[in-house]
Amino acid sequence: MIIDLNGTQMEATEARIDPADRGLTLGDGVFETIRVRGGKPDRFEAHVARLRDGAKVLGIVMPTTDSGIETRLIDVVKANELSDAVVRITLSHGVGPRGLLPPDPAVPTLMITASSRPDIAGPVKAIIAMTTRRNEHSTTARIKSLSYLDNVIARREAAGYEVDDALLLNTQGRLAESTIANVFLMINGALLTPPVSDGALPGVMRADLIARFRAEEHPLEIDDLARAEEAFLTNALGIRPLIEVAGQPIGDGEPGLITQMLAARL
Amino acid sequence: MIIDLNGTQMEATEARIDPADRGLTLGDGVFETIRVRGGKPDRFEAHVARLRDGAKVLGIVMPTTDSGIETRLIDVVKANELSDAVVRITLSHGVGPRGLLPPDPAVPTLMITASSRPDIAGPVKAIIAMTTRRNEHSTTARIKSLSYLDNVIARREAAGYEVDDALLLNTQGRLAESTIANVFLMINGALLTPPVSDGALPGVMRADLIARFRAEEHPLEIDDLARAEEAFLTNALGIRPLIEVAGQPIGDGEPGLITQMLAARL
Repeated sequence: MIIDLNGTQMEATEARIDPADRGLTLGDGVFETIRVRGGKPDRFEAHVARLRDGAKVLGIVMPTTDSGIETRLIDVVKANELSDAVVRITLSHGVGPRGLLPPDPAVPTLMITASSRPDIAGPVKAIIAMTTRRNEHSTTARIKSLSYLDNVIARREAAGYEVDDALLLNTQGRLAESTIANVFLMINGALLTPPVSDGALPGVMRADLIARFRAEEHPLEIDDLARAEEAFLTNALGIRPLIEVAGQPIGDGEPGLITQMLAARL
Repeated sequence: MIIDLNGTQMEATEARIDPADRGLTLGDGVFETIRVRGGKPDRFEAHVARLRDGAKVLGIVMPTTDSGIETRLIDVVKANELSDAVVRITLSHGVGPRGLLPPDPAVPTLMITASSRPDIAGPVKAIIAMTTRRNEHSTTARIKSLSYLDNVIARREAAGYEVDDALLLNTQGRLAESTIANVFLMINGALLTPPVSDGALPGVMRADLIARFRAEEHPLEIDDLARAEEAFLTNALGIRPLIEVAGQPIGDGEPGLITQMLAARL
């Protein structure tokens, strides 16, 4: 596998991350996962805008232009002889000394990796995570940061129940998101998704659904799962029907019609 | 600087962390900061026990024995010709493919670095962080994880106010800890520190104060800062007087007598 590390393509086996990189030592950085079709990234502008927002929150100076990142991305996909792919952009605060404050100036680390796109996945069964909650009080909930451990432990919890994903509640007990996706419920024909202020990551696909399909931000409670006619999860890779939560079916327990219609159009 | 990476000593400049290490990509790992005096680590058993607890929470299999880690630690300090030092042990879940679930089996990354001990630092002025809260609802609040970004942004917030540290409130608005230390208040002659259930990291020095100096776990509110006769912060490096929070002096704004007495005995 060939990756791009700070603007240079190299075999991943030869790429070296410094042991003092703050991405490793402190989770100080952000990332994006982007779907690539026919060699072209989907919704690149929205993804790079979010990457830039996250970098700003963390005080990381972007090491290159948006089009510079796009070129590297497209070239990495090509170098791996991929066409439909999943690309990850990882941007860390770079190498730093001991302590929480970054050096000034810091030299960020920007890494782009590509993998073949996983098969379109089927319907999702989920649990409600008990090991953690989404912390809607933190600025870090609004960026896609490298400090991703809460989502990791919730995903491991789900694996323990042999289901596909876990829904994260926020600290007030409302629905926030899943470990890798935003959540949507259809209730009385309206498409509802938790607001960012409730701890939902501002997902790129989520924004698309709000802009193009009149989905609405609305606080959602656990009880709303029982009321939902349909439910689905979205992330950069697409949309998946959510058919069961904590052993209870959503609607009739089958992928919903609206979900399937949207899946065909996204 | 010489570090130990997976049991091999090498120049830090030659050490290579894999770009797919889950410590970097997901903050999936734990760390310890340990004080070394005269070449010997302070409270090693307590530190390694916490490292092991954290590894267990994350499903990371410890790659070597406690005494194996201690030997590597002592040898790294020696190799850097240090005697009084600060050592950091970083344990990540190792290299993994795309996605949140670790491979099974995973091969963890264990890294030990040493730096010269910073000068004993003086009294601390702090703010109360507004950018984030400590998430006491998460299992990750009870381990010292690599997903340390909440503390990083709070420390940067403090730097913006030109103070030394920030106190983190939990999601209910109670005191939890500082970005790098546990917090203690002396109120009516009793030494009080927030309970782990309120989001305090179970600090090694904190445990020592509870065991040896009758400090007590007790929920603390912001208002308690105004009532405190003295306050201090503890971490593996020692104890520092906390003399001011958000521009308001603690007690008479000078390092307290009990604080100084404890500092001499820890």
